[in-house]
Amino acid sequence: MEKVGIVGVGMHRFGKFPNLTLTEMGVEACVQALRDSGLDKRRIGACVVGNVGGGMVPGQKVLAELGLAGIPLINVENACASAGTALHVAWSFVASGRYEAALALGLEQMSRTIEGTIPLGGDSLELQMGMMMPGKFALVARKHMELYRTSLQQLAAVSVKNHRHGALNPLAQYRKEFTVEEVLSSPLIADPLTLLQCSPTGDGAAAVVLCSAREAARASQPIVWIEASVLTSGTYEVGPRDMTSYDQTRRAAAAAYEAAGCGPEEIDVVEVHDGFTISEIIHSEDLGFFPKGEGGPAAESGATAIGGRIPINPSGGLLARGHPIGATGLAQIAELVWQLRGQAGSRQVDGAKVGLAHCMGGLVQGLDAAACTVHILKC
Amino acid sequence: MEKVGIVGVGMHRFGKFPNLTLTEMGVEACVQALRDSGLDKRRIGACVVGNVGGGMVPGQKVLAELGLAGIPLINVENACASAGTALHVAWSFVASGRYEAALALGLEQMSRTIEGTIPLGGDSLELQMGMMMPGKFALVARKHMELYRTSLQQLAAVSVKNHRHGALNPLAQYRKEFTVEEVLSSPLIADPLTLLQCSPTGDGAAAVVLCSAREAARASQPIVWIEASVLTSGTYEVGPRDMTSYDQTRRAAAAAYEAAGCGPEEIDVVEVHDGFTISEIIHSEDLGFFPKGEGGPAAESGATAIGGRIPINPSGGLLARGHPIGATGLAQIAELVWQLRGQAGSRQVDGAKVGLAHCMGGLVQGLDAAACTVHILKC
Repeated sequence: MEKVGIVGVGMHRFGKFPNLTLTEMGVEACVQALRDSGLDKRRIGACVVGNVGGGMVPGQKVLAELGLAGIPLINVENACASAGTALHVAWSFVASGRYEAALALGLEQMSRTIEGTIPLGGDSLELQMGMMMPGKFALVARKHMELYRTSLQQLAAVSVKNHRHGALNPLAQYRKEFTVEEVLSSPLIADPLTLLQCSPTGDGAAAVVLCSAREAARASQPIVWIEASVLTSGTYEVGPRDMTSYDQTRRAAAAAYEAAGCGPEEIDVVEVHDGFTISEIIHSEDLGFFPKGEGGPAAESGATAIGGRIPINPSGGLLARGHPIGATGLAQIAELVWQLRGQAGSRQVDGAKVGLAHCMGGLVQGLDAAACTVHILKC
Repeated sequence: MEKVGIVGVGMHRFGKFPNLTLTEMGVEACVQALRDSGLDKRRIGACVVGNVGGGMVPGQKVLAELGLAGIPLINVENACASAGTALHVAWSFVASGRYEAALALGLEQMSRTIEGTIPLGGDSLELQMGMMMPGKFALVARKHMELYRTSLQQLAAVSVKNHRHGALNPLAQYRKEFTVEEVLSSPLIADPLTLLQCSPTGDGAAAVVLCSAREAARASQPIVWIEASVLTSGTYEVGPRDMTSYDQTRRAAAAAYEAAGCGPEEIDVVEVHDGFTISEIIHSEDLGFFPKGEGGPAAESGATAIGGRIPINPSGGLLARGHPIGATGLAQIAELVWQLRGQAGSRQVDGAKVGLAHCMGGLVQGLDAAACTVHILKC
C-alpha cells in the first residue's frame, strides 16, 4: 500500500450559521484546504464527503461550486463518525494506488436542517424509552463514578480545560472560559451532566487534501503522514455490559498502534470525541493514555491540558470547538495538522510530532457506537 | 491492484413490502449472498452499504443481525447510483489489498420511509419550478424524437421488452406482459411518457460478496471477475446543452472499456439504468452499443431483447424488476452474475460471458446525474 500524506487542511468556523447554506460552508473549507496544499485542484482524483442530515448528494453541490464536478464522489454517513469515515475511505483510495490525490470533506448544518428532526441514535428499545445521548452518557458517568470514584469536579475539569483551549481557537464555536463551579452550576441536562458538559449542536465544515508521496513533493506545506487509518463498528448488545469502556475504540486503537508501529506513550497530542465530559475521560483510558479509572484524576491534574503530559483536545474538542456531526472528524484532523506543523498559535503543543484523532458515533439497536475511527498522524 | 471476483449474490425480491423492515430485507439479501458464496461469514473484512432514505447508519442494523457487528462498515449515498457506488468502494477495498473479502449491500424501502418525502432530485432551480424526474425525461424524450425521429412506438418497445423480461424473473416487482398499445394507452405522466414507461417506486435489497483471487479459491460458485469498476460524477450546468446524451456515462464507459481491455462489441449482456423508456435508449447509445439516434430502432427491432444481438435488462430493468433506489445497482450485478454463470433460468442469455452494468442517479443544481457507475464483469 502507498504511503499517504496530508498536504492541506481547511475549516469553516464551527457555530450557528442559519443564514449560510451547507454548500457555502463546504466550499469555504475546501478552498482553504486546496490553497493550503498548494496543489492545483485538477490534481484531485476523487472526493469523499461525510454528512448526516444534508439530504441527497450533498457533496456534489460543493464539487460543482469548486469547479471539480465530474470526478468520482462518494457521500458517506456513519453518524457522528461520518467525517472520520470519509477520511478513511479517501485514505484507502490513495493508499491503494488508485488515486494520487483525494479530497475529504465533512459538513453539517444542524441549525437549519437537522435540529429537532434527526433521529438521534436510531430506533433501539433504549431510545424508544427516551434514552437520548445525554441520558445514556449520564448513566455511563454514574457508573464510572461508582466504579472508579470519579468525582463531579473531575468531570467538570474536562469542560473547564476544553473551554480554555477553545478560547484560544478562532475557529471554535465557543470561546469563553468557565470555572469548575460555573460548569457544575450550569443547568442540569441529565444528572450528573450539566449543560457545559454536553457538546452543542452547530454548523460547519472541515476539509483535508491527501495524496501519495509522489504528489506530496509538489505541496507547499510540510507533509503530515497518515501512519494509521482504522475504522471499526460497534459490537455489543442491549443488556448487562461494561458501560464505562468502548470495545470499538479499544480495537481501533490497537489496530492503529500496530499499523503505526508505536504506542500511546509516543503520542504527543490527541483529539478525542468528547461528546460529553465523561466521554473524554473514558476515551483517554480506552486509547491507553491512562489506566482504567485514572482518566478523571488525570483531567483534574492538568495532565491533559496544553502544557501537560498528554494534551487532549487542544482545539477545544466537541465541547467548545463544537460538533456539527458530519464535520467533526475532519476538524480534529485539521487541528492535529496545525499542531504537528507548529502552526497552532497560542494553543500550540510544544514539539508535537505525533498526533492521534479518535472519532465515534451512533447508537443503534443496542450497538453502542455504530462506528469508530482512529487516525495516527506524524510530521 | 488485486484482481477482484464476485463469489456470491443475493436479493430480496423487489416490490412493495410496507410490513417488513428495511433491516429484514437487507439481512435476507446478505444471507443469500453469503450462502451462495460458500464462504464463512467471518471471512468478510468490511461492509459497504448503499441507501438513500433509511436514516442514520442503516447498514449497522443489518450487520448486527448477521452476527457481523464489529467489522468496518461504511454507509454510502449517491442517489439512484448508491448501490453501484457501494460496489465501487467495496471493490476498491479488495483491489487495494486491504481486505480479502467484502460485502456490498444496497437496500431501500420507499413504500414506508421515502415516498412523498424524498427530495427527489435536490434543490436546483429547474426542480423548484416543478421539473421532477418524469418531466425532465419527457423533455429529453421529445428532444430525442426531434433529433433522431425516435417514435412513440420505439419508446414503448423498451417497456414491452422489459416487462416481457420481468415476467420471467421471480424477483421482479412486476411480472405482467404488455403490448405496445397498452403501454401507449396507459395513463399519461409527462408527455410523451406514459405510466408504463416510468420505473415504479418500491422496496427491496441486493447483496454481493466480493473477494481476492486467493479467497475466491474457497468459493463454491464459478467466479465472476470484476474487470472494471468506474465511478464518475456529472458535470454540466443548467442552460443550453445536449439533453440526449450523458457525458458521465460516456466517460465512465470509456474508462471501463479501457480497464477491461474490451469494447462494447465484446459485451454479451447488459443491465442499464432504465428509469424511463427514453433512458434505456439513450444509455444504450452512450455505452456504445448503437450509434447516436439508433437506440430507438434497435429496441423496436428486438436487438436488445433476450435472444437479440445485445440483450439489455434481461432482469426486467428498473421498469419491471423495479427501482428501490438504494438497491438497484446491486440487483443489476446479481442479474449479471446469474447470467454469466448460466443460472438465469428462462431468461438466460445464451453463452453470456461478459456483462456490463450501468447505474446513475441524482439531479442536483444543474448537474445532470450526480453519479454514474459502470462495471464490467466476466466469467
